[in-house]
Amino acid sequence: MKSYEEMTKEELLKEKEGLEAEYKKFQQRGLKLDMSRGKPSQEQLDLSMGMMDVLTSGVDLTCDDGTDCRNYGVLDGISEAKQLIGDMIECNPDNIIIYGNSSLNIMYDTISRSMTHGVMGNTPWCKLDKVKFLCPVPGYDRHFAITEYFGIEMINVPMLPTGPDMDMVEDLVSKDEAIKGIWCVPKYSNPQGITYSDETVRRFARLKPAAKDFRIYWDNAYCVHHLYDINQDHLIEILKECKRAGNPDMVYKFCSTSKITFPGSGVAAIATSANNLEDIKKQLKIQTIGHDKVNQLRHVRFFKDIHGITEHMRKHADSLRPKFEMILDTFERELKGLGAGSWYSPKGGYFITYETLDGCAKNVVAKAKKAGVVMTPAGAPFPYGKDPHDSVIRISPSYPSLEDLTTAIDIFVVCVKLASIEKLLGE
Amino acid sequence: MKSYEEMTKEELLKEKEGLEAEYKKFQQRGLKLDMSRGKPSQEQLDLSMGMMDVLTSGVDLTCDDGTDCRNYGVLDGISEAKQLIGDMIECNPDNIIIYGNSSLNIMYDTISRSMTHGVMGNTPWCKLDKVKFLCPVPGYDRHFAITEYFGIEMINVPMLPTGPDMDMVEDLVSKDEAIKGIWCVPKYSNPQGITYSDETVRRFARLKPAAKDFRIYWDNAYCVHHLYDINQDHLIEILKECKRAGNPDMVYKFCSTSKITFPGSGVAAIATSANNLEDIKKQLKIQTIGHDKVNQLRHVRFFKDIHGITEHMRKHADSLRPKFEMILDTFERELKGLGAGSWYSPKGGYFITYETLDGCAKNVVAKAKKAGVVMTPAGAPFPYGKDPHDSVIRISPSYPSLEDLTTAIDIFVVCVKLASIEKLLGE
Repeated sequence: MKSYEEMTKEELLKEKEGLEAEYKKFQQRGLKLDMSRGKPSQEQLDLSMGMMDVLTSGVDLTCDDGTDCRNYGVLDGISEAKQLIGDMIECNPDNIIIYGNSSLNIMYDTISRSMTHGVMGNTPWCKLDKVKFLCPVPGYDRHFAITEYFGIEMINVPMLPTGPDMDMVEDLVSKDEAIKGIWCVPKYSNPQGITYSDETVRRFARLKPAAKDFRIYWDNAYCVHHLYDINQDHLIEILKECKRAGNPDMVYKFCSTSKITFPGSGVAAIATSANNLEDIKKQLKIQTIGHDKVNQLRHVRFFKDIHGITEHMRKHADSLRPKFEMILDTFERELKGLGAGSWYSPKGGYFITYETLDGCAKNVVAKAKKAGVVMTPAGAPFPYGKDPHDSVIRISPSYPSLEDLTTAIDIFVVCVKLASIEKLLGE
Repeated sequence: MKSYEEMTKEELLKEKEGLEAEYKKFQQRGLKLDMSRGKPSQEQLDLSMGMMDVLTSGVDLTCDDGTDCRNYGVLDGISEAKQLIGDMIECNPDNIIIYGNSSLNIMYDTISRSMTHGVMGNTPWCKLDKVKFLCPVPGYDRHFAITEYFGIEMINVPMLPTGPDMDMVEDLVSKDEAIKGIWCVPKYSNPQGITYSDETVRRFARLKPAAKDFRIYWDNAYCVHHLYDINQDHLIEILKECKRAGNPDMVYKFCSTSKITFPGSGVAAIATSANNLEDIKKQLKIQTIGHDKVNQLRHVRFFKDIHGITEHMRKHADSLRPKFEMILDTFERELKGLGAGSWYSPKGGYFITYETLDGCAKNVVAKAKKAGVVMTPAGAPFPYGKDPHDSVIRISPSYPSLEDLTTAIDIFVVCVKLASIEKLLGE
């Protein structure tokens, strides 16, 4: 295939003409397709319907330790839920607090508490002139929304195929005491699907931050979200690595079952050092009478143990894999060697990222919209919604049917080609 | 009956001797009884077990408006849950946000948001030199714990049989701009079981606070928790009354099903004006992906409508009434006219308050403990745990069996008598 760069103006114009005809045909179909949100499909939700049957009026809702899950009590989660989540995220159950239904809410609470009460005895952030966060980009828009909401200055750190640019991270955190945290999605990252390399994790654990209250916000949202049985990414467990490196308190690890069972009706958790847990519990006992233990028990009874989760995630993979493969195959077939951008081939997670030529992302998303395909807004994966190169597009394959998704991706490819040619033609 | 005041020293000493013998006998039984926590009993929890059967794998988890409760989406609660809770608290569903499992958590979030972001455009409280809250006393210790946690100065306001001393409330809020709120449990109050009179509610609605961001924190925790079918307290609906009085934004109303279905696995909500809701949602959309819709649906399907809740609360009343009546009968029989303190006779709620002679509450609680009866710590219903008269004791009748409770109250009565005599003898 001849790349667009190699084509003459005439060849490009001819190519464009063909693409415009194709685009018009799509437009005429009046489609309504949505690739914007990382929502599980109905097929995936159906996988967890058995969870609705494990607790009935005939079932004893008592924990192994005798706790009646129906009543008040237990601030940090029932022990069998800690065990299950601990196995899932490779942490000691003693290092875990089980929360409600949303890990995002835990992250919000963590920042909010740091604002009003500080971290382990350090000055509350609301008393400081300036608080900054490092934001590996592209990243998760809802992370950035939290730090923006609290007026925290966000500094972009480029993502490399190995994870965030650690030279930059090391340099910045060692110099600037105002930098209090970094947002990380270390496995099958949102949106690129990159897993941090062993070296990256080790360098994280060995950071020497100027701020005593610097914390790594390790959002392990996709820890068990593999697409393949064998061909999986592996991530070094950060808590142990931090402990080994003499930085035991430097990380908060977050997870949830939102994309395992039901989004919104899952179980979320934080894992961190004993010191951090003590600090958090001082707040937690004021904030709540405890989280939903019946739902914790429901999850435990449904999965039984980590093997139950593994089995369950295989079924999710069976549903997601054809969608991911279709997209990557289409890109390979239609876009490879064309010089119209690049993409990652994740082995898990929920997203595929397409990187257009500089300055083309907004155009592609707008074109797709006019042909009936809703994408995540260009810029969304960046702090303040500003993609400095206007080149990153997040694709969410999970929600549409394979058939709809195939059409949507066909349209997307045409939009990418058109926008690239328009750029090269200087239009 | 001769009151202690009327007795000679010799008579008191003789009375004391008899009581000490009685007390010793109780001690020898090695009892372990708990009247400390407002926890529903197992019998009460069993009333809601049917809720575990309404959602099964064979049931469609779709809302009336087509929302799949299993997936992401819907920030402020499914519409049928808003309808149900709206009927329960006599508010328009449009004025409601359904949260997670804990109304305490909503109150905490409300204060926390006011600290970091202010109320409807006013200065964030963390930027002010001083923030104060009015605290009707005795009151709910967990309310006071939240304001204490945020360094908010708490000012005691005495509870009268009609509710908080409104002369004092009106005077304080109109003069002091630092006063940003007041904690209220307006119906079957915690711990006295007092319901605010019509005049009290009307005066609340007509407050002229110096602070624009002053809010009434109206914790309607016991709105449907009557003990009797006919003999019920009635409370004027505060949102409508505030609107009528030209103060539509002055109140946040909180409620939950914690003591209706399962504590910790219920549904909590806030009701307030459109302006306040808009203010809250700015935060909510940053804080969470939404609350547990499946559990909302579970509650709706279980109760069907407000009549289902009314029916259900009758069963709770049947379980609680004998306990309340036994305690009040015992007090009437053993303590009336004795000059050893006084008590309220609530028609609903979860608690009975006994007021000892000044300076006796701690002694009574300590004596009870040594005889195997755990009470709520004296002082707990006051800010900073300080009861200025050391006279208020909260009794929680719900959790123990009627049999255990009867023994516990017999012990309590002996402890009250002993402590009173000790005081009168100047010991």
